[in-house]
Amino acid sequence: MNIAIVGATGLVGRQMIKSIVERGLKAENYYLFATERSEGTRFEIFGKEYAVHALTPSAIIDKRIDLALFSAGKAVARSFAPLLVGRGAYVVDNSSAFRMDPKVPLVVPEVNPEDLNSDSRIIANPNCSTIQATVAIKPIEDYKRIKRMVISTYQAVSGAGQSGVIDLKNGINCKSPQKFPRQIYSNCVPQVDDFGANGYTFEEDKMMNESRKILKRPDLMITATCVRVPVFNCHSESLAIEFFEPFDLHAVRNILRGAKGVRYFDDYPTAVDADGKDDVCVGRLRRDFSVDNGLNLWCVADNVRKGAAVNAIEIAELLLKAGKISVS
Amino acid sequence: MNIAIVGATGLVGRQMIKSIVERGLKAENYYLFATERSEGTRFEIFGKEYAVHALTPSAIIDKRIDLALFSAGKAVARSFAPLLVGRGAYVVDNSSAFRMDPKVPLVVPEVNPEDLNSDSRIIANPNCSTIQATVAIKPIEDYKRIKRMVISTYQAVSGAGQSGVIDLKNGINCKSPQKFPRQIYSNCVPQVDDFGANGYTFEEDKMMNESRKILKRPDLMITATCVRVPVFNCHSESLAIEFFEPFDLHAVRNILRGAKGVRYFDDYPTAVDADGKDDVCVGRLRRDFSVDNGLNLWCVADNVRKGAAVNAIEIAELLLKAGKISVS
Repeated sequence: MNIAIVGATGLVGRQMIKSIVERGLKAENYYLFATERSEGTRFEIFGKEYAVHALTPSAIIDKRIDLALFSAGKAVARSFAPLLVGRGAYVVDNSSAFRMDPKVPLVVPEVNPEDLNSDSRIIANPNCSTIQATVAIKPIEDYKRIKRMVISTYQAVSGAGQSGVIDLKNGINCKSPQKFPRQIYSNCVPQVDDFGANGYTFEEDKMMNESRKILKRPDLMITATCVRVPVFNCHSESLAIEFFEPFDLHAVRNILRGAKGVRYFDDYPTAVDADGKDDVCVGRLRRDFSVDNGLNLWCVADNVRKGAAVNAIEIAELLLKAGKISVS
Repeated sequence: MNIAIVGATGLVGRQMIKSIVERGLKAENYYLFATERSEGTRFEIFGKEYAVHALTPSAIIDKRIDLALFSAGKAVARSFAPLLVGRGAYVVDNSSAFRMDPKVPLVVPEVNPEDLNSDSRIIANPNCSTIQATVAIKPIEDYKRIKRMVISTYQAVSGAGQSGVIDLKNGINCKSPQKFPRQIYSNCVPQVDDFGANGYTFEEDKMMNESRKILKRPDLMITATCVRVPVFNCHSESLAIEFFEPFDLHAVRNILRGAKGVRYFDDYPTAVDADGKDDVCVGRLRRDFSVDNGLNLWCVADNVRKGAAVNAIEIAELLLKAGKISVS
């Protein structure tokens, strides 16, 4: 099996390489692609060095690629994913290019692994904020059907890639932020991505629409406010959940304690606790007395790991396990 | 008229002195009190220097004090406010000591100035997060009755006083934070104040209970999640509001544009915009499609100014205007 990583030098691409080694996803060859600027950058994978190459159609034409992990934005995904699929590869794409395509599975392995039983050779990796919310919600939704959710996020700068991290590192001296619409140092910016219709940002639209698709709940009512905060890594989220019917708080706590991919905190996790971990951390569980059948919780995850790289690799692991990728 | 400032050397006390000058609240004498540690610290008010004295019963016994602005915590307020009131003073207290006392008015001048028509000589200044939320909400509530609100806050370290600011300044090197239950640098801490009953923090209880009292809506349904963020000054809040009946979004926008104490942003304000200002900044106004009659908004205010010192001084100005404080 040969694996390609497209966008290998980005924050998520680098984490993909790290997580491939951590999780033991062995291949005969790894092909690392990025922009021309990064050509020649070298990474070690299982003791062997690999150089980064510029991604061009000719660069992939002579290679057998069984699995390609993309984290290079929508435009690159739209150009190159079909090309690779046409040559027999599976593509797990971290951009929003294909996420809402009804023919493309949008998968969080803890939530909807069954959606990989599809003919599509493109699998979409959901938005970072969406992944952690659905991992936390799914075991609860299996217990009692959720009617509505109000979500407010506290999103780290690493979600905007290396230039976002640099903006925050530059602190107050970052006078003209490259990556954010406003100063991020000592500030909270309630705009992640551009504005779409009705006053919502695309990030908020993604959270609402992708969650519905992943949970197979087109009727699920969600409103989201997505906010960038001056935190280097790990997104936090405040969730107000409303069920259709009464629930038992202790039952929810026990369900979360035993849930796959969830680390339950009796008090609460913070970004510092989730940093470098692959689990979704959940806490501040309490009854919301302002509505019938209301539940509040707080969830935190490493957005570069579980919110992006690790989720993509877990999808790849499921494809391998299902024998979809031919280890010839 | 003689004015005392109790807690003069704290973040809020210093702002009270600044705002007294900015707003022209002239008195014959200013008496500045703090702990023994701060004795001798000097402040200039309208060109004259005043020294800080330790607050003791004997320090006030020989002074005529008409108005005392307290920002020195619950214990000091409980000991000294009754003493000063007994000697004829009005006390505006910034602690939570008297806020929920049914005999004590809890006042935001833009919201419930009429509550100053009371016999109480103690007036409570609400919690910082509560003040800005009620200023933003009141003109909307006057238009259409609010049924429920879900609030998530993004609270600055200045809300925890000077030691909170120092913790954030120390950054990653602040290994054992003095003021916060967790590292605040590059982190979001969903715990402001201690935990009370039912899994809510006292800060959350304050937001819920004080808002109901100020708005005279004991039936108003509110749930709050209060979070400390690595921002030096100005609290931000994400509000999901539900009305009892349909509303017109343009009408709400126009109401906020003309509302007293509100600065309306077509896009959104951030902490940087609100810093050093006395207004409550409101933006991200949009319909919440996840519920009937839903409205989302974002509000930001300088928590040391409008959230504390300025609100207290505005109360004092109303007391003067009503002739309650005898300018003999």
